[in-house]
Amino acid sequence: MPTPSTDVDLALAAELGQQLRVDSVRSSTSAGSGHPTSSMSAADLMAVLMGRHLRYDWDNPGNPANDHLIFSKGHASPLVYSIYKAAGVVSDEELMTGYRRFGSRLEGHPTPAGLPWTDVATGSLGQGLPDGVGVALAGKYLDDLPYRVWVLCGDSEMAEGSMWEAFDKASHYKLANLIAIVDVNRLGQRGPTELGWDTGAYQRRAEAFGARTFVVDGHDVAAIDQALAQAGDLSGDQPAVILARTVKGKGFSEVEDAEDWHGKPFPADMAERAVAELGGERHLLVRGPRPPAARPRPAAGDQAEVKLPVYERGAKVATRKAYGEALAALGARPDIVAMDGEVSNSTYASLFAQAHPGRYFEMYIAEQQMVGAAVGMSVRGYRPFASSFAAFLTRAYDFIRMAAVSRADICLSGSHAGVEIGADGPSQMALEDLAMMRAVHGSTVLYPSDATSAAALVQAMADLDGVSYMRTTRGGYPVLYDSGEPFPVGGSKVVRSADADQVTLIGAGITLHTCLAAADQLAGEGISARVIDLYSVKPVDTAALTAAAAATGGRVVIAEDHHPEGGLGSAVVDALTGAGRTELAVAHLAVRLMPGSGSTPELLAQAGIDADGIAAAARRLLA
Amino acid sequence: MPTPSTDVDLALAAELGQQLRVDSVRSSTSAGSGHPTSSMSAADLMAVLMGRHLRYDWDNPGNPANDHLIFSKGHASPLVYSIYKAAGVVSDEELMTGYRRFGSRLEGHPTPAGLPWTDVATGSLGQGLPDGVGVALAGKYLDDLPYRVWVLCGDSEMAEGSMWEAFDKASHYKLANLIAIVDVNRLGQRGPTELGWDTGAYQRRAEAFGARTFVVDGHDVAAIDQALAQAGDLSGDQPAVILARTVKGKGFSEVEDAEDWHGKPFPADMAERAVAELGGERHLLVRGPRPPAARPRPAAGDQAEVKLPVYERGAKVATRKAYGEALAALGARPDIVAMDGEVSNSTYASLFAQAHPGRYFEMYIAEQQMVGAAVGMSVRGYRPFASSFAAFLTRAYDFIRMAAVSRADICLSGSHAGVEIGADGPSQMALEDLAMMRAVHGSTVLYPSDATSAAALVQAMADLDGVSYMRTTRGGYPVLYDSGEPFPVGGSKVVRSADADQVTLIGAGITLHTCLAAADQLAGEGISARVIDLYSVKPVDTAALTAAAAATGGRVVIAEDHHPEGGLGSAVVDALTGAGRTELAVAHLAVRLMPGSGSTPELLAQAGIDADGIAAAARRLLA
Repeated sequence: MPTPSTDVDLALAAELGQQLRVDSVRSSTSAGSGHPTSSMSAADLMAVLMGRHLRYDWDNPGNPANDHLIFSKGHASPLVYSIYKAAGVVSDEELMTGYRRFGSRLEGHPTPAGLPWTDVATGSLGQGLPDGVGVALAGKYLDDLPYRVWVLCGDSEMAEGSMWEAFDKASHYKLANLIAIVDVNRLGQRGPTELGWDTGAYQRRAEAFGARTFVVDGHDVAAIDQALAQAGDLSGDQPAVILARTVKGKGFSEVEDAEDWHGKPFPADMAERAVAELGGERHLLVRGPRPPAARPRPAAGDQAEVKLPVYERGAKVATRKAYGEALAALGARPDIVAMDGEVSNSTYASLFAQAHPGRYFEMYIAEQQMVGAAVGMSVRGYRPFASSFAAFLTRAYDFIRMAAVSRADICLSGSHAGVEIGADGPSQMALEDLAMMRAVHGSTVLYPSDATSAAALVQAMADLDGVSYMRTTRGGYPVLYDSGEPFPVGGSKVVRSADADQVTLIGAGITLHTCLAAADQLAGEGISARVIDLYSVKPVDTAALTAAAAATGGRVVIAEDHHPEGGLGSAVVDALTGAGRTELAVAHLAVRLMPGSGSTPELLAQAGIDADGIAAAARRLLA
Repeated sequence: MPTPSTDVDLALAAELGQQLRVDSVRSSTSAGSGHPTSSMSAADLMAVLMGRHLRYDWDNPGNPANDHLIFSKGHASPLVYSIYKAAGVVSDEELMTGYRRFGSRLEGHPTPAGLPWTDVATGSLGQGLPDGVGVALAGKYLDDLPYRVWVLCGDSEMAEGSMWEAFDKASHYKLANLIAIVDVNRLGQRGPTELGWDTGAYQRRAEAFGARTFVVDGHDVAAIDQALAQAGDLSGDQPAVILARTVKGKGFSEVEDAEDWHGKPFPADMAERAVAELGGERHLLVRGPRPPAARPRPAAGDQAEVKLPVYERGAKVATRKAYGEALAALGARPDIVAMDGEVSNSTYASLFAQAHPGRYFEMYIAEQQMVGAAVGMSVRGYRPFASSFAAFLTRAYDFIRMAAVSRADICLSGSHAGVEIGADGPSQMALEDLAMMRAVHGSTVLYPSDATSAAALVQAMADLDGVSYMRTTRGGYPVLYDSGEPFPVGGSKVVRSADADQVTLIGAGITLHTCLAAADQLAGEGISARVIDLYSVKPVDTAALTAAAAATGGRVVIAEDHHPEGGLGSAVVDALTGAGRTELAVAHLAVRLMPGSGSTPELLAQAGIDADGIAAAARRLLA
C-alpha cells in the first residue's frame, strides 16, 4: 500500500470529499442500486471528519481507544465504503465489484459481518444514534477512555421518536463524547422532509433536549472543521449536535437538490458525467489522527467466580426474583452490565442495581433506547442484560431484529408475561413475546418454571451468541429443582414419567405448574401422564419431544400462557413435524381470547390453561 | 338518577376533585390493586376539565360533536372510572365491586370493551397521545367538527419517543384541537423521573416541537381553569400542552410525594384515614358543558361503488402495486383513509394520495405515530390503511398489539418482504412480520401472490374486524387469476392438482411462484405435485390443508420467505396438527440464515426456497 496522507489540510479534505462522491457514484452505478445522492450530501462532512478529527487506528480496529463512527443513515453505504477505500482497508476493486453483490461484505446497508470498522448494522432509520448512546455510555462510565462516538444521522430520521429518546438519554447521562452530525439535505425518499432546511427548528429541539448545537454549511470544509473541533471537545457535559445544511446529490448539477433521485444509482452515461463534473477519479489514501495510547482492555472476566443463589425445593419464588438475584450474582463478572425501562422493582433488575450501581443504567420508559444502549455496550465488549415488562419489549422489536443483524450479543428479560399477571389487564400481559423473540434470527428463548432453573439460565445467557431472551413470571411458584441441576440451553426436563404414560403434557413457566397439577388429577383417574418442562423454547429439545410423543402414542397436550401463534405450541409442533414422518394427536391450549382483569386462577381457567383445562384436553385425546 | 349539576363553579370543581380522589382510593382498596396515588395527582385537573371544559353528551357517547378524553396514563384508571361515576354513567356499586374484577368492564387499565366513553385502550405508556393525534387529525381534516381531544399524560411517559413523534405530527398538522395535559408528579414507578418537577425543561421541549404551553400548579383550580380555557381555544394552529406541577398522592398526607407508593392500593385502615382526610365520601353528579349541535355523521359509505383494477393473466405486476391501485379504487368509499411512513412511492400508497389527497396523511418516518393515527381515525369511524416497508412495521409492534386491545379496526400493509427484495440487505427485509402479526389477537394476515388476489383482498380488508395485515412483494410476478375470482378471507386456492398428486407444495407471495416452478420440474420427473396458494395466513384454510395432506400421503412441503418461526409454515403445521390425529411428513423451507445482499434468484436459492430447493425437498419426502 502506498503511504497514506496523515497530515490532511482543508484543501486535501475537500479533495477527499470529491473522491468520496466519485466513489459513491461509481460503486452504486456498478451495483445497479444504492443511494449515491444521499452519500454525496454528507461527503464533505465525512471527509473532514475522517481526515482531521476521527482518531482511528485503521490497522487495528480493535484498538480500545479508537473513536467510533456510526452511520445512522445506513443507506449512505456507498459513502461508508468509500471512506474505507480512502483509508486503504477496502480496495477499489472490492468496492467496484463487491458492493451489494451476493456474498460480499459490502452489503446494501452496512453490517458488522466481515467489516471490523462497522460497529452496528443500520438501515432501519433512527437506530444508529441510540446505539451510539450505548457506546458513549460505555466510554464514559465503563471504559473511562477518551474516545468519541460520531454518528452521521439523516434529517428524515429525526422524525423517529427513538432519536429523541437518544438525545434525552445522552443529555441525562452527560455524554459529551457523543456527537450527532445531521445531514440536513431536506429531501427524504418520497419528497421534502417535514422541516426542510429549517436548521433552526432542529436546533431548538436538540437544545431543548440538552445538546450543544452547531449549525454549519455542510459543504464549507472550514466551517465543518471548526464545528467538528468544538463538538469533539470532551471537556463539557453535553452531547453535541452538528446541524449541517447540505444539498442532496451535491457536486453533480443534474441531480442537485432534485426530487426523485433518492435511492437511485445513475445510469452509466450519467455516472460518467457525474465523475467528470466531480473532477474525475481519485485514489487518495488518507488517514487522520491516531487515537491516544490506551491500556489494554480488561480481561473479559468470565473467570470470575459466580455464586448463584440457592433455592429450596418447594419454596415459592417468582422467576423474576430469581432473575434479579442471579443477575446480581453474575455481576461478579466485570463485563456484566444491566439496564431497565423504569420497572426495575418489578423485574428485579433493582437487585443488580443495588449490588453493582456503577454498571447499572436506568433507561426510564424508553425501551427502544434501552435495547439500543445494550447493542452499543455489546460493541465495547460488555454483556448487557436489559429488562422490562415482557409486553413492553414489543416496543423495541425493530431494535431487537436489528440487534441480530448487528450480530450483537445481548440478553433481554421480560417479566409479567401472560394472563398469569392478573388484575392489571391485557395492556400489561405479554401474549406475543415468545412469537416475537423466536422469529429473530439466531435468538435463544428461555422460559424457566422455577427459580433454580431461572438462575442457572441467567448464567447461561451471559455466554450465548446473539439475542437471548428470558420470559419470567410474576407470581411465586414452587421450586422444582435442586441447586446444581444442569439446564443446558436447548434442553428440557422430563419432570414426571412412567413406562405406562399415555399422554405427554408440555408446559413452561406457569403452565408447567398447571401441567403438574393436571397430571395429579389424571393420575387419580388412572391416566398416566408424562410432563415436560420446556424451559428452552428456542432452541428446542427435539429429541426429547419426539421421544415423549412416541412413548405416549403421539398424544401431546401443550399449554402456554401466550396467544396460540408462534409460541411454545408452535415450537413443539415445529419440532415434532420437522423430525420426519410422524403420527400425532395434539391438543394445543393457549390464550385464544382477549383477556380482561381478574385473578390468576380465574384467568388461567378462562383461557383453558389451568389444571382442569389441561386434564380435560388429555382426556379428549384418550377418548 | 338525581339531576346532575351542570353549572360547575370552581368551588364545586374542587369538591369534585376530592370526590375523584376518594373514589380512586375506595375503588383501588376494594380491588386490592391499582394506582390511587397516580390518580390523586391528576384529580384536580380532571375535575376542572370534566366540570367546566369537556363538552360531552354523557347520554350519547356517539354524539359526533363530543370532545374526546384519552388517558394516555392508563394506569390512572381509578380516576377514569371515578369520572364516569361522577357523570352518572357508572354506579358507585359497579365501581366498588367491579374494578379490576374478573368479567368486569372496569379493567385494570381502560379498554373500550363495554365502555363507550373510552376511545382507546391505554396502559402501555406513550400511546394515548399518538392515538389522540389520530382523533384530532380526523376532527380537523375529515369531520370538520369543533371537538377537542384532551389527553392526560404522565410525566414518566414523556421519555417515550412516541410522545415526541406525536408532538411533531400535531404541530406539523396544526392540530389546535389537541391538548396534552401532563401530570408532572415527578415520581415514576421506581422513583424520581428524569426531569422531576422541572416543568421548564418540558416546556422548552414542547415549544421546540411546536406546541403552545401552559405551566400551572395542578392543584390550583383557578389556574387550571384558565389554562384549560386558553388551551381549548381552537382559533390557533398549534397543539397545546399544559404542564401541571402536581403531587403524587395529593390530599393524603401519609403518601404525598412519597416514593414506594406507585401502583399500590392503601390497606383498609389507611384508606379509611385517606377518605377522612379528603373530607369523606361524596356522591356529586356533575355534567359539564354540552357539545354544540352537529349534523349527523356521514353514512359509512360502504355502498359506494368500488371498481377494482383488472389485471391480465400472465402480466407481471408487483402485489405492492396492486395494493396501491386497489386502495386508490377503494377510495370511492368516503370512510377510507390512508397514511404511510415516508415510503409511499415504494408501497404505492402514493396512488391513493394522488387520487384522494384530502384523505391521505403523510406520517414521515414515524411508524409508531402512524399506527397511533390509524387507531385514532378508527375511533372516528374511518377505515385507515397504513403502510410502510414490512420490516419497519416491527417498529410499531406495541402499538399494533394495543390496537387489538383497543378493538380498533385498522388495516396495515407491509411491502418489501423477505429476501426477495434483493440487494438492499437484511435491514430492509421483513423476515419476522408474519410471526409478529399472527400473534396479535383477532388479527387477519394476508399474503397474496398475484395482483388480482391482492386487489380483491385489499377490498376485503376494509370490512374486517380488528387488525388486518397484508404483506406485499417487491418484484412483479405473473398474474395467476382472472378478475372476479373470489378470495374469501380464510380461504386458499388449489392452483394445481391431479388425482395422482403425491406431494403438496404450499407457498404464498413469491414462494407460490417458486412452488409452481418446482411442480413443473417435478412433473418432468413424473412426480405429480399439488400446489396451494395460501393467501390467507390467518385465518388459515384448515379444511383445504388437511384435505391436501390426506390426498398426498401426508407429504407437505411449505416454502416461505420468512424466518422459520411463526410464519406460513407455522400456520400450516398448526392447522394440520390441530385438526385431529394425523400422520405427516413435512418439509418446512424458510430463511434459516442471516441473508446479505444479492439478486433475488441468488438469495432465494441460498435460502433454499427457490424452485430447486422446493423440488429437492419434495423428492426427499418421496424417497
